[in-house]
Amino acid sequence: MTLDRVLKAESVAIVGASRAVTKRGYQAIRILLEEKYGGRIYPVNPKEDSILGLRCYKSISDIEGPVDLALITTPAKTIPKLLEECGHKGVKGAVIIAGGFGETGAEGRKLENLMVETARANNIRLIGPNTSGMMNLHQRLNLVGLRDAPEGNIALLSQSGNMALTLITEAKLKSRKGFSYYVGVGNEADIKFHEYLEFFRQDENTRAILMYVEGMRQGREFLQQAYKTTLEKPVVLLKSGRSATGKRSAGSHTGALAGMSEVARSAFQRAGIIWIEKSDQLFPVAETLSSLPPIKSNQVAILADGGGHATIAADLLTDLGVELPRLAEKTQEKLRAILPSAASVPNPVDVAGGTDADPSLFADCARIILQDPNIGGLLLVGLFGGYGIRFAESLALKEEDAAHQMGKMVRKYKKPIVVHSLFASEKPHALDLLRYYDISVYDSLDVACKCIGSLAEYGRYLKAYHTKMNFELNPDQKAHPEGRALIETVRRDGRRALLEPEAKRLLEIHGAPASRDRIAATAEEAVRLARDIDERVVLKIVSPDILHKSDAGGVMVGLKTEKQVRQGFATIVKNARRYNPKADIRGVLVAPMAPSGVEVIIGTQIDDQFGPTIMYGLGGILVEVLKDVVFRVLPISRSVAKRMIEETQSSKMLDGLRGNPPCDKKALVNLLLLCSDLVEAYPEIEEMDLNPVIVHEQGLSVVDARIILKDAAPPAPGNK
Amino acid sequence: MTLDRVLKAESVAIVGASRAVTKRGYQAIRILLEEKYGGRIYPVNPKEDSILGLRCYKSISDIEGPVDLALITTPAKTIPKLLEECGHKGVKGAVIIAGGFGETGAEGRKLENLMVETARANNIRLIGPNTSGMMNLHQRLNLVGLRDAPEGNIALLSQSGNMALTLITEAKLKSRKGFSYYVGVGNEADIKFHEYLEFFRQDENTRAILMYVEGMRQGREFLQQAYKTTLEKPVVLLKSGRSATGKRSAGSHTGALAGMSEVARSAFQRAGIIWIEKSDQLFPVAETLSSLPPIKSNQVAILADGGGHATIAADLLTDLGVELPRLAEKTQEKLRAILPSAASVPNPVDVAGGTDADPSLFADCARIILQDPNIGGLLLVGLFGGYGIRFAESLALKEEDAAHQMGKMVRKYKKPIVVHSLFASEKPHALDLLRYYDISVYDSLDVACKCIGSLAEYGRYLKAYHTKMNFELNPDQKAHPEGRALIETVRRDGRRALLEPEAKRLLEIHGAPASRDRIAATAEEAVRLARDIDERVVLKIVSPDILHKSDAGGVMVGLKTEKQVRQGFATIVKNARRYNPKADIRGVLVAPMAPSGVEVIIGTQIDDQFGPTIMYGLGGILVEVLKDVVFRVLPISRSVAKRMIEETQSSKMLDGLRGNPPCDKKALVNLLLLCSDLVEAYPEIEEMDLNPVIVHEQGLSVVDARIILKDAAPPAPGNK
Repeated sequence: MTLDRVLKAESVAIVGASRAVTKRGYQAIRILLEEKYGGRIYPVNPKEDSILGLRCYKSISDIEGPVDLALITTPAKTIPKLLEECGHKGVKGAVIIAGGFGETGAEGRKLENLMVETARANNIRLIGPNTSGMMNLHQRLNLVGLRDAPEGNIALLSQSGNMALTLITEAKLKSRKGFSYYVGVGNEADIKFHEYLEFFRQDENTRAILMYVEGMRQGREFLQQAYKTTLEKPVVLLKSGRSATGKRSAGSHTGALAGMSEVARSAFQRAGIIWIEKSDQLFPVAETLSSLPPIKSNQVAILADGGGHATIAADLLTDLGVELPRLAEKTQEKLRAILPSAASVPNPVDVAGGTDADPSLFADCARIILQDPNIGGLLLVGLFGGYGIRFAESLALKEEDAAHQMGKMVRKYKKPIVVHSLFASEKPHALDLLRYYDISVYDSLDVACKCIGSLAEYGRYLKAYHTKMNFELNPDQKAHPEGRALIETVRRDGRRALLEPEAKRLLEIHGAPASRDRIAATAEEAVRLARDIDERVVLKIVSPDILHKSDAGGVMVGLKTEKQVRQGFATIVKNARRYNPKADIRGVLVAPMAPSGVEVIIGTQIDDQFGPTIMYGLGGILVEVLKDVVFRVLPISRSVAKRMIEETQSSKMLDGLRGNPPCDKKALVNLLLLCSDLVEAYPEIEEMDLNPVIVHEQGLSVVDARIILKDAAPPAPGNK
Repeated sequence: MTLDRVLKAESVAIVGASRAVTKRGYQAIRILLEEKYGGRIYPVNPKEDSILGLRCYKSISDIEGPVDLALITTPAKTIPKLLEECGHKGVKGAVIIAGGFGETGAEGRKLENLMVETARANNIRLIGPNTSGMMNLHQRLNLVGLRDAPEGNIALLSQSGNMALTLITEAKLKSRKGFSYYVGVGNEADIKFHEYLEFFRQDENTRAILMYVEGMRQGREFLQQAYKTTLEKPVVLLKSGRSATGKRSAGSHTGALAGMSEVARSAFQRAGIIWIEKSDQLFPVAETLSSLPPIKSNQVAILADGGGHATIAADLLTDLGVELPRLAEKTQEKLRAILPSAASVPNPVDVAGGTDADPSLFADCARIILQDPNIGGLLLVGLFGGYGIRFAESLALKEEDAAHQMGKMVRKYKKPIVVHSLFASEKPHALDLLRYYDISVYDSLDVACKCIGSLAEYGRYLKAYHTKMNFELNPDQKAHPEGRALIETVRRDGRRALLEPEAKRLLEIHGAPASRDRIAATAEEAVRLARDIDERVVLKIVSPDILHKSDAGGVMVGLKTEKQVRQGFATIVKNARRYNPKADIRGVLVAPMAPSGVEVIIGTQIDDQFGPTIMYGLGGILVEVLKDVVFRVLPISRSVAKRMIEETQSSKMLDGLRGNPPCDKKALVNLLLLCSDLVEAYPEIEEMDLNPVIVHEQGLSVVDARIILKDAAPPAPGNK
C-alpha cells in the first residue's frame, strides 16, 4: 500500500482539537486555515461545537465525508481506542504526536506494540509516535506547529523536531530553496525510513532528500531503497549518536538504536548517500545537490580574488578527495590575456586585483575556466557580491551583470558553480541573483567547499555505479547439499558452534582452498598422518566443549619428529581434560604448518540495524593494536571486496614490501566473496571468524575457522 | 629594540600620497582623517602641495616634526632609496605595501634582501612587504584601506589580507568583540611573527591573539615566544597550505614556506596554541578565549530543549576530547525538581518542553548545573533567544531575564557558558545581552562546540603546563670530549656519515646501552669474536662508501658455526667489492643477534621552519606501511617523550599483548631523551636514524644506527 493517501491527504481530522490557543489541537487548525490547506479540516472534540469557525465533531465517526488522515494530539494511552474508531471510519493514516511509548522503557514498548497491532488490524498507517508532525508543503498540509516553512523541492526526514526546525529556519533565512515535505519519523513504530524514502523517490515534487538520523530500525531495507533512490535523486544524511554520550542522549530522545558508526557510514556511502558529519553542512549540501548538476570529472577549479581563501579552499577540497588539476595551457593563456601580470592562473586562479575596477571580469574568467574540458565545476571564493558594498556602489551593477552571466553559464555548460562570499550575510542583490539561477552561495568557506565537494562525490558515485551491487540477500540460493547436511548434523548435535574441521569443510565445499588437515583419534594415527604430511605439523584439540583451544592448552605448533607428535598428542589431550573434565573430545587435528605470508582476518556478524556484515583487516597480534579493519554490509561484489582490501592501511603489505613477493590478492578477494556467499546461502550463520588467514604468493591458507550458528529457535515473525 | 614606536606610532608619513580617490595613497589619508587618528599625518608627494586639506611634503626630509612610521605605497624598486631617506629623517618603521619581492622569484628575492639591508643600516623596522597594511585600533592608526573595523581586545596577525578582511567583517556582523591591532605580516622580510607575538604579549589592550599562517620563516623563535605568550594570553591559529595544491597557492601568494603539517601541529599544540582547521571557527574561538575563563576540569554539561542538538553536540565534544560526565546525583535531583517528568537530567540535560512557558527556567537549570563541582562549563543548545520570536512575544522578556542571570552567573562561578541558538541570525535582544556579558553565541552548533571545546583545551594546557618545556636548544652544553673527538675524526676524514660503530659509540658515550659489537679485520678475527659472543651473530660491512649495507649484500644474519662465520665474512667482503670496487672497507662488524622484542624506530632531522625535530614510531617493515609515527620539535622533556610513545597506535604492543611480557618503556623514554640531548650537544648532526631499535622486557638494543653530519661549511650568519 502506498503512502499517497497519508502524505497527500485531502482531508484531515484533528483529534484533540481545542479552543485553547496554547494547545497543539488549536494551533494545528489555525495554521491549516492560515496557510490555506485545500482539503477538508474536521476538528474532533466531544466537548466543543465549533473551533475557529469550523464545526467540531464529537467523534471521528460523526464526520460525514471521507477522512484520509487523522492528526491525534491526545495522550499515549488514548491512542489504541482512537485508532479503532479511525479504522471504522476508513481513515488511512494517523500522525501520533504523543510521547510515552517505546522511548520510555518496557511499559511504553508494550503500549507501542498494542498501538501498532491495532493500526494494522484497521489498515491504518502511522507516522510517529513521539513526532513533531508532518507537512506536505505543496498541498499546504501543515501538521506541525511551525509557520511559513519555505516551499521547495527538498524532502526532509528527521528523527528530531529541533533539527527539522533548525533546517527549516536555515532555509528561510539563508536560501531561496525550500521543502516538498517534512516528516518527523518519531519512533518509526509503523512507517519506517525506507518507506518514506520510496515515496519520495517517486514523488515528482521532490528533487533531493535530506535526513537527520539517530538510529534506524530496518537498516537493510533502507539501504536497498537508498540504492535505488540515489540513482534518481541525491540523498543527504547526518547520523548522530556516534559517541557514548551521544548515544545516551539519542536513547533518551527517540529510543533509536545508535548503531555501529563504521558499518553505517560505509553502507550509506556504498548506497550513494552523501554522508555529512557537521550539522552546518546539512542543509547547504542538500540545497546544492537539489539544484546543481553533479560534477562528472571530479576535477574542480578555484577562482579567487586573494590568496588566503584559495589556499584554505585547496586544502579542504583535497581533503574531500577532489582533484584540482592545473588548467590546460590554452585556458591559462586566455586567463593571462585578461588578468594583470601578478595574477596566478594554474589553479587556483587568483585575479590579483584584476576585478577591483570591474567585477564582471569574474564572469569572463568563469567562462574560460568552465570551457576547459577537464574542469567539471567551479568554486568562486572571496569578495564577490561585496564590491558594490566595499569599493564603489557602481560596481554592484557589474556584479549583477556577472551574476546573470554565470547563471546562464551553469545552464549552458551543465557544470556547477558554487560561491563563497564574505558578504553573503549582507544580502547584496548580485548574490540573490546567483541563487535565483540555482548557484549556491555561502558565507562559510568550509560549507562552500563541502557543497562543491559533494557534487563531485555524487558524480563519482554515479560514474562508478555499475561496479556497485544492491544489498538484497538471496537466502538458500547457493546452499550445497553437503553443507546443508553438515549444518543439520550440528543442529542435531545440539550445538551452535561448528568444530574447526566442520567449519573448514564448509568453506571448502564452497570453493576455499582444500585444507590438508586430518583428525587423529590416537597418538599412533597422529604420527601416521604427520608422516603423510611430511613437514612440520600443528596439533589442535577437537571438541565441541572447547571453543578457545589455545586457552585450554589445546594447540601445539612446529612438531617434526615422531616423538614430538606422539608426546604432543598426549599433552594436548591431557591439557584438554584438565581444562574441562567433561569435554567430549572428538580427536586431535593434524595439520601442516602454513607457509609464510601476510596474516589477515575475516569475520562476519549480524548487525542490529543492517543485518549480516563482514569485517576484513590485518591479522595476528597487530589486529588488536592497530584496528586496521574495514566493515561492509553483505552481500559484497568483487569490486567492493577489492576496495575493502585497498582501504586498509596494511594493504601495501600484500603488495610485497622490501623485496618480499606480492601476495595473492585475487585469492583473498575470492575468499571474501565466498564468505559473503556463505552467509547468504546459510542464513543460520550468526558469526564467522577466519583468523588468521595467511595469504601467500600463490593462494592462501585458512589457518583457523570458527562458525557459530544462530539460536535454533525460529526467528520472530514480521517486524522486529 | 621594541616595536613600540612602529605599532604605536604617533606620527605617520604617507609616502606616495595622492589626490586620486582610487589610490591607496589617497584612501589611507582619508581613513586616518575620518577615523580621527590622534597623531600627525604627513602626506609626501613631490608633485602635490596639499591633499585633503593637509600640507603635502616634497620628500620625507622636508617634514619638520619627528616621524615614527612611514606608509610606503610606491612600487617595489623605489623602496630601498626611500628607506635611506627615511633613515636620515630618523623614521623608526615602515609599512611596505608593494608586492614584487621574494614571492615572485630570484630577482624579487634580491630586491627584498637589498631592502632589508638598507632598513637595518638605517635602523628602520619593516612591516611587509606585500602586505595589506597595519592598524592600531585603540589609537585609530588605520593604515589599511578598510573602514569601521571594530575595536576590541583581539590582536590579529595574518598572512592574507583577504582572511583579515573576512575576520574583521565577521566580527562586525556577528559579534560585540573587536581588535586591538591588525598586522598583515606580508613576506616577513624584516619583522617576523615571533616579534609581533612578543609585542602583543606585553600589550595591555590585547587579551587574545588570532593568527592566520601559511608558512613561517623562523618557526623555532616563534614557538619559544608562543610558549611564553600562551601562559598569559590565548593564541589561536589556523595554518593553511597543507595540501600540495594549497602549497602551490600559498607559494604564489606570499612566498611562504608551507612546511610539514604534522610537525607544525604538534609543536604549536605543545606551545599551548589552539590549532584551528576550519576557517569558520577561527574568529569565534578567538572571541571566546579572549573573554571567557578557561575550563579547569575538562568536564562540560550540555543543556538543551530538544534531543537532536544535544546528541550532535555530545558527538562533537567527545571528538574534541571533552568529558561529559553524568551530573552528581544531587544536581540531578535539583533539576528533576524543576523540570517535567519527561526531562532527561544525567547530561545532556533535555528540558523536554519545561521551558516552553517560561524560558527563564534555562537560567535556573544553568545555575544548578554550574554549582555542580565537577562541571567546568556549560553549553546551551537549541532555541534560546527564539522563544519570543517563535511562541509568544511576552516570552522575550523572560529570555532577557535569563540572559541577565546567566551573564552574572558566569562571573560569579568563573565558569564559562557558550550558547548555540537557532535564532542567532535574527538578533533577538536576549542574545545581544548574553554577548554583553561575554557569553559567546553562535547559530552554528559546530562552532559553538568548538568554542567550548577550546576553553577546555586551553584549560587542559594550563593545568599540564608544568610538564611542558620550552623549545630553547642548548648547544655545546652536554657534548662529551670523546664524542667531540669522534666527530672531529669524521670531519677530518672528509666524511659526513658516521660509520655504524662510530654512531653506536656516540650513543653509548651518552648513556645508551653498551653494544657488544666488535669489528673484525679478517675472517679469523671474526670467528674469534663470534666465539666470544657465543650465540648466533650478525655480520655487517663497515665502509664509509657503503651507506646502504643491505643493498650492497653487506649484511648476513643468524650465523652460528665457525664455518658459517668464515664464509659469511668472505661473502660480505666480496659483495661489497662488487657493489663498489673503490669502497674503502674498514672491516666487518660482528654483533650478537638482538633478543626478541618490539621493533621501533627513532629518527631526528632538521625541519626548514622549526629546526631539529624527532620522529618515533613502530619499526620494521610495518613503518613503511602503517606510518604509525609521531613528530616533535626538539628538545623534548620526559613527559613529552612518554606522550610520543602513547600517541602511536602501536604503543599497546609495548604493554605486552597476548601474554607477551611488557617491554621496557622506561629504557625507550631514556633513549628518546638521549637523542634529544645528542642533537643539542652536537649541533653538527643533521640527521640520525636508529632503525630498528628492539625494546625488550628489560632494556633495549639499538640494532642499527646512522648519523649524518651537516655540510662542513659554516652556517650563514644572522637571519635566514
